[in-house]
Amino acid sequence: MLSLQRVTSSSYVTMFEANVRAMLLDHAHCEKKAASSALNMMFRYPDRPELVAVCADIVEEEIQHFRQVLQIMQARGWQYGRQMPSKYGGRLAAHLRTAEPHALLDRLLMCALIEARSCERFQLLGAGLSDPELAAFYQALFESEARHYATYLKLALTYFDEAEVRERLAFYAEQEAAICALGEDAPRLHA
Amino acid sequence: MLSLQRVTSSSYVTMFEANVRAMLLDHAHCEKKAASSALNMMFRYPDRPELVAVCADIVEEEIQHFRQVLQIMQARGWQYGRQMPSKYGGRLAAHLRTAEPHALLDRLLMCALIEARSCERFQLLGAGLSDPELAAFYQALFESEARHYATYLKLALTYFDEAEVRERLAFYAEQEAAICALGEDAPRLHA
Repeated sequence: MLSLQRVTSSSYVTMFEANVRAMLLDHAHCEKKAASSALNMMFRYPDRPELVAVCADIVEEEIQHFRQVLQIMQARGWQYGRQMPSKYGGRLAAHLRTAEPHALLDRLLMCALIEARSCERFQLLGAGLSDPELAAFYQALFESEARHYATYLKLALTYFDEAEVRERLAFYAEQEAAICALGEDAPRLHA
Repeated sequence: MLSLQRVTSSSYVTMFEANVRAMLLDHAHCEKKAASSALNMMFRYPDRPELVAVCADIVEEEIQHFRQVLQIMQARGWQYGRQMPSKYGGRLAAHLRTAEPHALLDRLLMCALIEARSCERFQLLGAGLSDPELAAFYQALFESEARHYATYLKLALTYFDEAEVRERLAFYAEQEAAICALGEDAPRLHA
């Protein structure tokens, strides 16, 4: 359903639990980045009313998630701060085509896949974390990530042929799986 | 209270009523830009926790306002779309110092003054528009713009001496008044 071509290992939960503070900080940055991506789509495509409306919804939800992560961190006495971004986003973006309308399709599919990967991992965290507050939090977020994945995919299908969307989604999912296999230098949500 | 050094003429309401569609479209773009400015502050200053937290609140509110303007436009059969930005923001930004920590102070004060100007004009619109839906809408927004103005100013006072803030605010308010006097080529919220 989520188009992903690589299954995250269940050891992801153990990795998260060994690095809760770094993972929450990275999560906050990811939510901020997700809000920024949706807002950028609104700036880039003002003449696509469906896109503008649903991206505004997504900006609002992502920034709410950001604030929720911040609250969880603050309650634990952990401060938000600067963090080296993971390589995941940049590696995905390297496959974006720049000429329109391909750029629009690729951006929508890239957003969809990032949401799908978050969704898959949040589900693992919701089911597997022993910390009840965090487990409940990720369980709740998992549903909204699934919705965002579907929203971006639906937007792609609004503007492009289904065959073209399916083909490009498969291509992008393959890249995403390969990027996940590369890993990261530090504990990251998408590592 | 709002630090502004030039009073908007009451003919602003007449200008708005003669250009409701263009003004609402411009207003939507301004809310999107305000959300973007607050989000950019979060990206630029991750090591300032108070700033990050209040800017996240502001992003959420501005994007809610954006959606409200969009709904009003849609109910009237007017589509959102591309628009040439006003010169106001760029002219203000030309006075930003680039070296830190001055850049932070200037950005906070620029955001404060833009909110102050919106606040002043929304109050005029709330009191003067004959369209009851729009009058009520601007009356409601006026309060949140006043709050945002106070928030940005309070952030400036968190990080800088009061004397320095007052002096730079007076300088910036003078520039803002001069920029307002220059006007715009088209009906714009900050024209």
